[in-house]
Amino acid sequence: MIHFLPLLLLIISCPLSQSNQFCDSGYGCGAYEGGLSRSSSSKILIKGGTVVNAHHQEVADVYVEDGVIVAVKPNIKVGDDVTVLDATGKLVMPGGIDPHTHLAMEFMGTETIDDYYSGQAAALAGGTTMHIDFVIPVDGSLSAGLEAYVEKAKKSCMDYGFHMAITKWDDVVAREMEIMVKEKGINSFKFFLAYKGSLMINDELLLEGLKKCKSLGAMAMVHAENGDAVFEGQKRMMELGITGPEGHALSRPPVLEGEATARAIRLAGFVNTPLYVVHVMSIDAMDEIARAQTSGQRVVGEPLVGTDHCSFNSTQKALGIDDFRKIPNGVNGIEERMHLVWDTMVESGQISAIDYVRVTSTECAKLFNIYPRKGAILAGSDADIIIFNPNSSFEISASSHHSRSDTNVYEGRRGKGKVEVTISGGRVVWENDDLKVVPGSGKYVEMPPYNYLFDGIDKADTAYLSSLRAPVKRIRATT
Amino acid sequence: MIHFLPLLLLIISCPLSQSNQFCDSGYGCGAYEGGLSRSSSSKILIKGGTVVNAHHQEVADVYVEDGVIVAVKPNIKVGDDVTVLDATGKLVMPGGIDPHTHLAMEFMGTETIDDYYSGQAAALAGGTTMHIDFVIPVDGSLSAGLEAYVEKAKKSCMDYGFHMAITKWDDVVAREMEIMVKEKGINSFKFFLAYKGSLMINDELLLEGLKKCKSLGAMAMVHAENGDAVFEGQKRMMELGITGPEGHALSRPPVLEGEATARAIRLAGFVNTPLYVVHVMSIDAMDEIARAQTSGQRVVGEPLVGTDHCSFNSTQKALGIDDFRKIPNGVNGIEERMHLVWDTMVESGQISAIDYVRVTSTECAKLFNIYPRKGAILAGSDADIIIFNPNSSFEISASSHHSRSDTNVYEGRRGKGKVEVTISGGRVVWENDDLKVVPGSGKYVEMPPYNYLFDGIDKADTAYLSSLRAPVKRIRATT
Amino acid sequence: MIHFLPLLLLIISCPLSQSNQFCDSGYGCGAYEGGLSRSSSSKILIKGGTVVNAHHQEVADVYVEDGVIVAVKPNIKVGDDVTVLDATGKLVMPGGIDPHTHLAMEFMGTETIDDYYSGQAAALAGGTTMHIDFVIPVDGSLSAGLEAYVEKAKKSCMDYGFHMAITKWDDVVAREMEIMVKEKGINSFKFFLAYKGSLMINDELLLEGLKKCKSLGAMAMVHAENGDAVFEGQKRMMELGITGPEGHALSRPPVLEGEATARAIRLAGFVNTPLYVVHVMSIDAMDEIARAQTSGQRVVGEPLVGTDHCSFNSTQKALGIDDFRKIPNGVNGIEERMHLVWDTMVESGQISAIDYVRVTSTECAKLFNIYPRKGAILAGSDADIIIFNPNSSFEISASSHHSRSDTNVYEGRRGKGKVEVTISGGRVVWENDDLKVVPGSGKYVEMPPYNYLFDGIDKADTAYLSSLRAPVKRIRATT
Amino acid sequence: MIHFLPLLLLIISCPLSQSNQFCDSGYGCGAYEGGLSRSSSSKILIKGGTVVNAHHQEVADVYVEDGVIVAVKPNIKVGDDVTVLDATGKLVMPGGIDPHTHLAMEFMGTETIDDYYSGQAAALAGGTTMHIDFVIPVDGSLSAGLEAYVEKAKKSCMDYGFHMAITKWDDVVAREMEIMVKEKGINSFKFFLAYKGSLMINDELLLEGLKKCKSLGAMAMVHAENGDAVFEGQKRMMELGITGPEGHALSRPPVLEGEATARAIRLAGFVNTPLYVVHVMSIDAMDEIARAQTSGQRVVGEPLVGTDHCSFNSTQKALGIDDFRKIPNGVNGIEERMHLVWDTMVESGQISAIDYVRVTSTECAKLFNIYPRKGAILAGSDADIIIFNPNSSFEISASSHHSRSDTNVYEGRRGKGKVEVTISGGRVVWENDDLKVVPGSGKYVEMPPYNYLFDGIDKADTAYLSSLRAPVKRIRATT
Repeated sequence: MIHFLPLLLLIISCPLSQSNQFCDSGYGCGAYEGGLSRSSSSKILIKGGTVVNAHHQEVADVYVEDGVIVAVKPNIKVGDDVTVLDATGKLVMPGGIDPHTHLAMEFMGTETIDDYYSGQAAALAGGTTMHIDFVIPVDGSLSAGLEAYVEKAKKSCMDYGFHMAITKWDDVVAREMEIMVKEKGINSFKFFLAYKGSLMINDELLLEGLKKCKSLGAMAMVHAENGDAVFEGQKRMMELGITGPEGHALSRPPVLEGEATARAIRLAGFVNTPLYVVHVMSIDAMDEIARAQTSGQRVVGEPLVGTDHCSFNSTQKALGIDDFRKIPNGVNGIEERMHLVWDTMVESGQISAIDYVRVTSTECAKLFNIYPRKGAILAGSDADIIIFNPNSSFEISASSHHSRSDTNVYEGRRGKGKVEVTISGGRVVWENDDLKVVPGSGKYVEMPPYNYLFDGIDKADTAYLSSLRAPVKRIRATT
Repeated sequence: MIHFLPLLLLIISCPLSQSNQFCDSGYGCGAYEGGLSRSSSSKILIKGGTVVNAHHQEVADVYVEDGVIVAVKPNIKVGDDVTVLDATGKLVMPGGIDPHTHLAMEFMGTETIDDYYSGQAAALAGGTTMHIDFVIPVDGSLSAGLEAYVEKAKKSCMDYGFHMAITKWDDVVAREMEIMVKEKGINSFKFFLAYKGSLMINDELLLEGLKKCKSLGAMAMVHAENGDAVFEGQKRMMELGITGPEGHALSRPPVLEGEATARAIRLAGFVNTPLYVVHVMSIDAMDEIARAQTSGQRVVGEPLVGTDHCSFNSTQKALGIDDFRKIPNGVNGIEERMHLVWDTMVESGQISAIDYVRVTSTECAKLFNIYPRKGAILAGSDADIIIFNPNSSFEISASSHHSRSDTNVYEGRRGKGKVEVTISGGRVVWENDDLKVVPGSGKYVEMPPYNYLFDGIDKADTAYLSSLRAPVKRIRATT
Repeated sequence: MIHFLPLLLLIISCPLSQSNQFCDSGYGCGAYEGGLSRSSSSKILIKGGTVVNAHHQEVADVYVEDGVIVAVKPNIKVGDDVTVLDATGKLVMPGGIDPHTHLAMEFMGTETIDDYYSGQAAALAGGTTMHIDFVIPVDGSLSAGLEAYVEKAKKSCMDYGFHMAITKWDDVVAREMEIMVKEKGINSFKFFLAYKGSLMINDELLLEGLKKCKSLGAMAMVHAENGDAVFEGQKRMMELGITGPEGHALSRPPVLEGEATARAIRLAGFVNTPLYVVHVMSIDAMDEIARAQTSGQRVVGEPLVGTDHCSFNSTQKALGIDDFRKIPNGVNGIEERMHLVWDTMVESGQISAIDYVRVTSTECAKLFNIYPRKGAILAGSDADIIIFNPNSSFEISASSHHSRSDTNVYEGRRGKGKVEVTISGGRVVWENDDLKVVPGSGKYVEMPPYNYLFDGIDKADTAYLSSLRAPVKRIRATT
Repeated sequence: MIHFLPLLLLIISCPLSQSNQFCDSGYGCGAYEGGLSRSSSSKILIKGGTVVNAHHQEVADVYVEDGVIVAVKPNIKVGDDVTVLDATGKLVMPGGIDPHTHLAMEFMGTETIDDYYSGQAAALAGGTTMHIDFVIPVDGSLSAGLEAYVEKAKKSCMDYGFHMAITKWDDVVAREMEIMVKEKGINSFKFFLAYKGSLMINDELLLEGLKKCKSLGAMAMVHAENGDAVFEGQKRMMELGITGPEGHALSRPPVLEGEATARAIRLAGFVNTPLYVVHVMSIDAMDEIARAQTSGQRVVGEPLVGTDHCSFNSTQKALGIDDFRKIPNGVNGIEERMHLVWDTMVESGQISAIDYVRVTSTECAKLFNIYPRKGAILAGSDADIIIFNPNSSFEISASSHHSRSDTNVYEGRRGKGKVEVTISGGRVVWENDDLKVVPGSGKYVEMPPYNYLFDGIDKADTAYLSSLRAPVKRIRATT
């Protein structure tokens, strides 16, 4: 949903003047370049915290060396050259993984205000240590799209991976999908059932795409809204004189998400292919997914925790001041997600800390097949770790956040829990509300195909084929 | 489902040689032309039966004059010029109405074996006294299509109405729809979500069609199967070497009907338009319809009782002997429906005789807005009546049926209950297993728009419009 | 739900002093006794209205003589001795039937403020012309209970019928049930799954009751809330210090209605007996009923339209001022129901006028097997008729209502539509906001067993019995 | 379901004469007593297998010392005193845990044929290394019941835990529940909604039991069938002359399980207590559980994998030869479960090996709060391990199984996959189809309260309490 805040004429153009913002050349870069500061130490011991993994939690120390977790057990003894962080009474958890972001994306005549540097910096300040961004093809070319995103990602300050959007269909696209999976470390492709006239594909292409994904062991993702109907809804609103941002939501009621979700699930079931439905928002869509899961179909619905971080500032949003259809779609979330999920779900008693780790990190690592390198605090895992204080609290504001946007849709939101320390790739990058990141330090994470949802797909296909009944006997009559 | 019976070389070409068939120029035409036979009497009294209407049943006499029911009450006294039928111990019910037939339809390179004469003759022998057939446009032209069907229907021997299929979309079609409703007595339009490459339309056209239907008060009907996926399923079967008729069913599993039903319902809900889903066959589709109805949406699912009578003989079916995709789709049913529904539903205790009248006749008359002229035994209603003996029994066979087809998908089916007399337009046309029909005696029934499903649609629209929230305040910033 | 309004010290004890109330000896009794007033005419013609039945609506005149509808057709000509009511532009509908009332019921240490006279007077002023009240056994004795209610009903001013509550179980009760059905005109029995310690029965008794109802062709009704859990909820509230009326609702959340509804439906299904669930209020319970109906089970849920009119005045409600468990349960509704249903359902576009007649009158008449004597405007039906002006409006207030209660839970509620004339038993009793009723003029309506829900039950039972598999072969081993 | 096989007169009374059975004093006891045999080694290395945990699988070695897993990593080097098992190409998984057994239970006038020794021996031969058995109170006394079961369990040859059945309710029972949880290592209590007249409890007791469980952090379990209705169903079958074993199933159709499941779930929700529904068998019950889970309620349904192993031999079954109600209920399963679940679920492609570990072992360990001591192959876990060959196969027969029963309900069942080695408490007890177990070697596993389903229950309760609305204002009127 678009929250269209009052437009400000003066967008602060000089970040250096903002104590609450960051310098474009790197947060705390001096310290980093100086070399021997505490936070750049290659050896870290986190002592006395409750280590929470998705499968178990226990009080233990965590020892990190050269970007990797070396040991997780009680009472680890270390030498003087090790940075020691006291986590007594706190939770030590895998850094968050945001499966759904759009950084530096050209869209609707402008580009998202957060690029790979500022967006990732915001993420780290909020306890998220990896994200997976959507590569948008250039004129339908996947390789050209990838090339552009590789360039964008050069300034990364944390680890990242790529999904790939599929926006048209021909033999070239099919061949390029294969290259992406086998050579480029991409294991997921997204299909848009909305955005008529630009990204939207029809059912025939979706079926082709699903089959191609299946043959490659890649995860098929869908943006599930009926694009024809959204288009109709937009016309309706304009005809009613509703040109303001409220027209955005009114033109795409939940039933249109329910429809496309129901359709994508059934078509995926028809070709027996795992499906990932992005940003599930409505009860109708959730019910469809729940029903499919109960029946045994391999369908995953992406909840709140994939942020779809896709931020634009007030000036950009103002492109649609007279026509909501021209407002660049998207809001922030990459910095706020870990706090919001904790406060909303754990503090209310709906989920446990273990569940929290699962939904914010581990499940995503498993779905994109990089577990336990990511998504776990185990010996051998990457040292992407947060120290979380459940007894502290947070408050969200555009005046203190790390996105480049001048607004925040959660402005003023307070709650319990606080990411006090973020360790990314073995380095402390967030501590004492102080962010120390380095452009170029982030690594690209190749993601292999055939995640766990593909287990047994071949056996089920075999069973299906053998279930096809023997041909009916046909008799060709003779004179 | 296609039942592909062994092909017979010799199709009996001379109906006169078949005692169990009928002559093309009219059943028992001699008697009719002779004038004074009992069955051509314009005055009939049905005595002592249990008259069953959808709202009530009671023991009463029914008096008919000049094709119209004049009185329904106990102990009617009449003169000697009245044909008296004793219905003691039997049920007197409105003749069936079949909302879904295809007579004399050109399809898949051939034409259905039953035309308006033989198909209707079969209907009357089975207790159905009206049907609604689908006009297929000629090259997209509704008026050309109607012209052709008016010609086909000239040989009718019972009353009939028309639906109209919509197979493409432009301004001409939209204008012609208006003419059909306002001048031609057509109040329903059918959209095909299947038959890719020929009849299938996309969601954009469906939305336009739904809106046009709504504006005209016409019933929108959908054939709900995902045509892209059926096409995919057909390719799959051929690739697997499954070329026989079993490939037909295997290529279009229930999930594809579920998908299209879910989609059509939600799109109809989006534009608040009543919807009629034809030939609902799967649990998935039925559940979708039930859910929508429970939520208050105006959706109707057509069950068994609309037969989709669309028959081809063995020779025609053989067009697809090497490729199931070339088998002309369709089976018989118009003659069998009344007996099958009784035996399956009433004899099993699932529904009552009153329900039977509702599902076989009254509900259809109401949906197509011709109640109580049709679908009721009330003073003023058309004299389309059957006398049904629940203690008798039936057996179905191609050797005794009245369709021109040389096979019957229900061959050998037996059950309880028997249509002993059919009165059509005030004339006894079926009695003692003897059929007396006259080509040209059937009348076209104009069907007005705005059936009961439209009640309150305007009020609900008004409520929706007033629920749209006031515009968000937009501030254009100034320097 | 209990609405606990501020207590008034002075309860108006003298109805004669209230111009907005009525005299206990009869509304407008003078006029009645005088004999020849317009409203006491035995011949009435309602001209030019739209006559709405549940199966059809049409513009027609309605002619009434001696309490019975004689003719319904256009342009009826009558003599001068006939009272003519002009209904042009208005709706002529069957008077409402309220299937759920408690008049003159002794309950929780007091007695409902409305008795058979005042409650029925209120009903007539609101367009309801028949109600079915619950006979409460005396010390478990059905016959003693009936005797008491026959006495209470002697002052009736409109037609009424009886349900019977079953509050304990033994052979005497079983035998008395048979007498009630076969000799006393009662065809429904109500079982309470709530009211632990007083009316509540356990599952064993419920099963016995269901079987007995089935054997008699009587409708089994349940008050579906889990009494053990309600008791627990009440304790919980008291322990939390919540003693006020809000504790009533808080102690019995919807899940307890859902539970008992789910249970009653499945037990009724187990013994294949039709079931009527009274006052369905929660989504959970509605979903259970909808699911059962979709599956073909014969279950009826009673909505808003059965009012459970059971009114107490402020002084009576004050019995529970310190303990919500002692507040006599119940609110008014018998006078308001027809207006509220129209405004809420028809004016919002959810249902049509035809549906309105069905839910407020016809369906009830069919369920309790008195259709078409009641619930229809047909020749031969009782002359219980309302003339309804959809363009007028209503407002509800304790200062103008006809119940004896000093409060009204719908105080201040306004809406569209107005019952302008009520005809009861062929007499105009409500016209120009003037009520003219006569104690003792109401008749007891005997209701025969085996309503339409029983159709086919025997056939289904037969099918079940024949489905029981043949015994497994048992071999007694020998040495 | 009872499978009632032909009765054999002669039950083999001398197990020594059966090569396919075992000696009562211990399988391969000589080897055990001899001390230094391979299988009694206290150090074991499992080399080269794929170690499957519920959260991850990887190729690794597993090193075991003194009954505990010491290391899980690739290429472990060990000395000569270590027994090395080659698991190349095989799966190394946690031993199964059966959460539902009845060994040495006195029931229906007899006692289960398998006691703690023979039943556990069978379990180990089938790859199950722990079970949780139900303590049945003695005359309602929990402590007396526990005492009896402690005695029965003295001959145990593998680890075990206890559930406790609750069969009546008073203050003593409540106090004893507390003792069981706080002092005796029992963290679950089972309530029977069936077995009218013996074990069955009513809703009031169930509510009390649920609340007590919640206060202790104990898991409430229910046997969910409506006992009153089952009793009714049994009477019905006997009256129909159906006295054979088929009457068992016919008397308790799925709807009765659905009812009790729906009831237990809602009552548990009402008091916000986690619930475990034992042996879920019907679609209706599964749907109820799925709905509750989707809504966020903490409900667990026990599937196939809890065996309810409760075996009787032919002679015992014959007690009910003339009356199915007297057949001791129960069948075998503890030895067969691991093979059946693999073949049915993994081989069909429905679940993965990881899922298999989760459902057969890990989930149970977590639910009963003994993870990761049990249910995992992690450093520190108990050495309860199986080596599973997915390319081998199994066949089930009473002639080769290890239960004392003379029949097997899965007689002749074949499938893929084979438990080739079972390690229990660090000892190889099953290898080369050879069983070596020692009575008395099994240990009692204390299970602590507050499993993961209790996480957040307190926070949710707090939220509920604060949601209770402020009291309605009550005014006591004054003169």
